[in-house]
Amino acid sequence: MIREGIDVERLLRNYDPDRISIATIASHSALQILRGAHKYGFRTIGIARPEHGWFYRQFGFIDEVWEVDFTDFESIIPKLLERNSILIPHGSYVEYVGWRRAIKMEVPTFGNRYLLEWEADQRLKMKLLEYANIPTPRIFDDVNYAKYPVIVKLYGAKGGRGYFIAKDREELMRRLSDLNDAYIVQEYVIGVPAYYHYFNSYVYSRLEIFGMDIRYESNVDMRIPGLVEPTFTVVGNIPVVLRESLLPTVQRYGEQFVKAVSELVPPGIAGPFSLESIITDDMSIIVFEFSGRIVAGTNVYMGIGSQYSVLYFDKPMDMGERIAHEIKEGIKRGTLAALLT
Amino acid sequence: MIREGIDVERLLRNYDPDRISIATIASHSALQILRGAHKYGFRTIGIARPEHGWFYRQFGFIDEVWEVDFTDFESIIPKLLERNSILIPHGSYVEYVGWRRAIKMEVPTFGNRYLLEWEADQRLKMKLLEYANIPTPRIFDDVNYAKYPVIVKLYGAKGGRGYFIAKDREELMRRLSDLNDAYIVQEYVIGVPAYYHYFNSYVYSRLEIFGMDIRYESNVDMRIPGLVEPTFTVVGNIPVVLRESLLPTVQRYGEQFVKAVSELVPPGIAGPFSLESIITDDMSIIVFEFSGRIVAGTNVYMGIGSQYSVLYFDKPMDMGERIAHEIKEGIKRGTLAALLT
Amino acid sequence: MIREGIDVERLLRNYDPDRISIATIASHSALQILRGAHKYGFRTIGIARPEHGWFYRQFGFIDEVWEVDFTDFESIIPKLLERNSILIPHGSYVEYVGWRRAIKMEVPTFGNRYLLEWEADQRLKMKLLEYANIPTPRIFDDVNYAKYPVIVKLYGAKGGRGYFIAKDREELMRRLSDLNDAYIVQEYVIGVPAYYHYFNSYVYSRLEIFGMDIRYESNVDMRIPGLVEPTFTVVGNIPVVLRESLLPTVQRYGEQFVKAVSELVPPGIAGPFSLESIITDDMSIIVFEFSGRIVAGTNVYMGIGSQYSVLYFDKPMDMGERIAHEIKEGIKRGTLAALLT
Repeated sequence: MIREGIDVERLLRNYDPDRISIATIASHSALQILRGAHKYGFRTIGIARPEHGWFYRQFGFIDEVWEVDFTDFESIIPKLLERNSILIPHGSYVEYVGWRRAIKMEVPTFGNRYLLEWEADQRLKMKLLEYANIPTPRIFDDVNYAKYPVIVKLYGAKGGRGYFIAKDREELMRRLSDLNDAYIVQEYVIGVPAYYHYFNSYVYSRLEIFGMDIRYESNVDMRIPGLVEPTFTVVGNIPVVLRESLLPTVQRYGEQFVKAVSELVPPGIAGPFSLESIITDDMSIIVFEFSGRIVAGTNVYMGIGSQYSVLYFDKPMDMGERIAHEIKEGIKRGTLAALLT
Repeated sequence: MIREGIDVERLLRNYDPDRISIATIASHSALQILRGAHKYGFRTIGIARPEHGWFYRQFGFIDEVWEVDFTDFESIIPKLLERNSILIPHGSYVEYVGWRRAIKMEVPTFGNRYLLEWEADQRLKMKLLEYANIPTPRIFDDVNYAKYPVIVKLYGAKGGRGYFIAKDREELMRRLSDLNDAYIVQEYVIGVPAYYHYFNSYVYSRLEIFGMDIRYESNVDMRIPGLVEPTFTVVGNIPVVLRESLLPTVQRYGEQFVKAVSELVPPGIAGPFSLESIITDDMSIIVFEFSGRIVAGTNVYMGIGSQYSVLYFDKPMDMGERIAHEIKEGIKRGTLAALLT
Repeated sequence: MIREGIDVERLLRNYDPDRISIATIASHSALQILRGAHKYGFRTIGIARPEHGWFYRQFGFIDEVWEVDFTDFESIIPKLLERNSILIPHGSYVEYVGWRRAIKMEVPTFGNRYLLEWEADQRLKMKLLEYANIPTPRIFDDVNYAKYPVIVKLYGAKGGRGYFIAKDREELMRRLSDLNDAYIVQEYVIGVPAYYHYFNSYVYSRLEIFGMDIRYESNVDMRIPGLVEPTFTVVGNIPVVLRESLLPTVQRYGEQFVKAVSELVPPGIAGPFSLESIITDDMSIIVFEFSGRIVAGTNVYMGIGSQYSVLYFDKPMDMGERIAHEIKEGIKRGTLAALLT
């Protein structure tokens, strides 16, 4: 485990708390993050890949759009520090720079960057969930003992692509023989997926249920079932709400996750994270993934706000606004460093 | 039919109209109901099962959370009356105390509590819909004349669980032979489901279309069709809007339902109810269920408000706010008793 | 191609810019359009078929509901002009009066009415998309060279009804032999559908991504796959958001479409339009249809506003409001005529 530790307090010492910028990679949930930040009065910076800046430049709420070669992301660190930037990490950031570099990046980063390593490794990921005492699908280390159907997850898969289901031993063996990547073989839980967005607030000392979504996956074609094999490529997200009687379980699993992170991955998790589950027929919630940072599913509530955000605030909020709100309050109370790693 | 009749006028005589509390069972749509009530200035009470109060205690808009053994729900009646409470009934209330006790509960209850009996009995339910002249699926009393596929609905089923589809006579016979519960065998209408939320306003003398939803059902697994039999367990809800050309039909069926209730189940229905339909390929709406009170599907609009609510009000409203608004106006106009049974 | 040209400038010369009415056919997206217009201070007119006015008369934001025999729609032109009306065209208007009459209707019409002809003809439609250099499904003029599965689209089909999929040559031949209507045979692209709503603003000189939806289609029955053939009858719409990394492509295709229209169908397109796509497994967006005017899918955001509208405006907006906003600004700036044909 990497624990070199960026000295956030030291970096913040040179920051002007009245002139904080919010920076993020121009993709994934950047529109939401930067719009929220702008609304709360922060300067905003979108960091795009070369030739990808044009899309973000049209929006008035983004003060600066930089185009950066991500193989040399480190070169913009001085500019980021000069602008008193807090970096909001998300899935594309991790994809572009990799968790190893993200962990060492000398920029104050919202939430717990050390979680990125756990997220990147299917086995560490499941270990953390199990430590949190959250029900998870069985992993079949020895495929001779697999119970079918199973789902095979490649370590390097992006957005679900490359995962596959095997209905029996014969299909599993045949397909595993073609694989070169690392993978895990997991119980395929029968039920429907649901993704829970949380916000762990240090400022208010509470875990908030923010919202939920369902992933919209190509090519799960509902019109000609059986025509093609579904590939789980996530192309979008659909809003959903849960039976209220399931919410206490969602809350409990979220709190157990927060506790587990604080024990295994100090300094614990501030801000957004997600648990990703299957709900079975008997209303059990089986969690098969987590994300230790903002998920793209929160985009379904951009600008409109989520149903559950009104449980904590007077008006609906989106996740970009929620993050900006937390940072603003952290600055006001002089506890900003606690929100960052 | 039970018609003992709670004397609401008598109960209200001891109430202070300036200090009304809104009380509901802490489940189902309680968050929405109590948040709406709080927004309109009412005192709010959440009544939870033993050890289930913790979840609701975190929210500032709930003034009191009580934990109550529902086998002795009647014991809290004096406390409810003392706090000038109006009880908002919903699916979990009916599930916990049963319709028989709900009908006799000596607490002013929003809407028409006598409908609960009709809702609980598959045959009374269909009778009311037919009386309202709303198209419904055929019921096959004599399974020898069934047209397949059919859906078999158990009287005691909760949230759709235990319903099953039979594609032919052989499958039907085999599965019926295993059943001990009462059931009806109904035509399985081919099409897509849609659930309509209405609000019948006595205060404004109009039937409002509030919103719509689709139920999110485990384990209707879209990824491996045919792997398991769908069980119709509702785990959540998804927002949907209808073709505008279907809205007049939705409105008409709603008005016919209101009229039928006022004739068969006096004193008629004030407040929220729902019609639950299949829309077929030729745009016919076939109604297979109703709920004579708030449905959990309205939760998809919590805090955000529904698309159709803006047809009647300046700003989007959720169903909790809509209920609170009606009660507030009823108090102002001195017509509160008409909204209650 | 019809290019008779209504002289909008001449018609507007008799209009009082301070007393503009917004008129539309009472169906499709009329509630949204008229509510938005009312919010922006316009007088509103709903034009219903005989005996269909009652539904619209209940809403306070509609100032006048007329019942009109659409075979004689032209008879109300003087009344429309007298009230300084701008007609907002939508799918039902085209369905009721036909594109030929719509093109000649002597009433100022929002957007580009000449596009209606292109929309009505499957081959013109695909030609325009191809001219715009937007990826489209292959059309098999010679079915001997078809790659299966294919989708067969009837020219006269309404709302998708009558489309069918053929999995192989035998099925295609058998079903084509029953057909009397004109049709095209198209590659059936495997993936998931997504419909993009745009607003091309002349006032702000920009193309806005407004929102997205998925169509809710009867009878694509997810519960008994294979039981019936899906018929693609659209009964409603469901909100969706896209992966942010796909948005630049959506924006680019939209801009290419705007450019193509300005070249092939002068005077170009002002206001709402839609591109209708399949997103494949490798994240390609294949566009199979367009609508050159407001689509019913925007109804999912009525009153609430869309996620993407906040990228351009401080508060979420719905498409009815967006149209009214544009007209209002056009009047203010003296450029109203440019928004109309």
